[in-house]
Amino acid sequence: MTIILGVDPGLQRTGWGIIISEQNKLSFVGCGIITSKAADPMPERLKQLHDGLVETIRAYGAEEAAVEETFMNNNAASALKLGQARGAILLALSLAGVTVSEYSATEVKKSVVGRGHADKQQVAMMVKTLLPKSSAAKADASDALAVAICHAHHRTLNRITAGAMT
Amino acid sequence: MTIILGVDPGLQRTGWGIIISEQNKLSFVGCGIITSKAADPMPERLKQLHDGLVETIRAYGAEEAAVEETFMNNNAASALKLGQARGAILLALSLAGVTVSEYSATEVKKSVVGRGHADKQQVAMMVKTLLPKSSAAKADASDALAVAICHAHHRTLNRITAGAMT
Repeated sequence: MTIILGVDPGLQRTGWGIIISEQNKLSFVGCGIITSKAADPMPERLKQLHDGLVETIRAYGAEEAAVEETFMNNNAASALKLGQARGAILLALSLAGVTVSEYSATEVKKSVVGRGHADKQQVAMMVKTLLPKSSAAKADASDALAVAICHAHHRTLNRITAGAMT
Repeated sequence: MTIILGVDPGLQRTGWGIIISEQNKLSFVGCGIITSKAADPMPERLKQLHDGLVETIRAYGAEEAAVEETFMNNNAASALKLGQARGAILLALSLAGVTVSEYSATEVKKSVVGRGHADKQQVAMMVKTLLPKSSAAKADASDALAVAICHAHHRTLNRITAGAMT
């Protein structure tokens, strides 16, 4: 049994979702949004995201984290801002001692829906199908659950592959 | 007397410089480079930068930190990467409990050389003039000392202004 934390990074709103992966079975545990206050200085905002993540990891005993690779915006200023949130989140996870895996949006879609070019609605619908108890999840939290599911699939696959080789 | 840490953020190489500001006098204490291993996963690299900064803050008893605002590259992929390093650094400073101020490259140049459009060589030369003992500093560390000097000037100015108003 492994407790997985999925994260959808954002400076204003970071989505998180916790699932349990046990054999081939996935179960929904919780999800939510961590926000930072736009009026606060950047170091303080990044600490708010850090504190929210640490609290979530401790509350649910998360052991492994999966983070979605950021959508590549063409605007360098937005990319820098999002990069800052992402860097703070990756550092927070690393300091909290959980293992961190990164997945591209295409990998997440392929893993959850079966197609790398699925749209947001299809991903959200599949998340609700795979984790029926998550039906009330908001968009950012649903994306976080999707990357957690992607990680659960990958680690099961890795275990099977490793097992087949021994 | 205030111990100031200046930081020039970068994923591969983060420059740092420590100075002491006492009345109108500045003195050089130390400077160097914190590197992260390109072969390591991103969360681990960000933790290497964090650990290096925490070690530096503790070793020198830094109380205030100044970070140069990042040069805005037009390339969104580079901006995201640099943003990640910067976000991790701002979070590390915030977690370490030092106050953090940010200055644009123009503010740093104006403060150190007297002109916002000074070139890199002029900044480096002025850093050596203001802090003669820093003459062996490498480029990244010299930039970090420049932002520390900029912060020292600003805080003195703020104190004088505050004093004049009372």
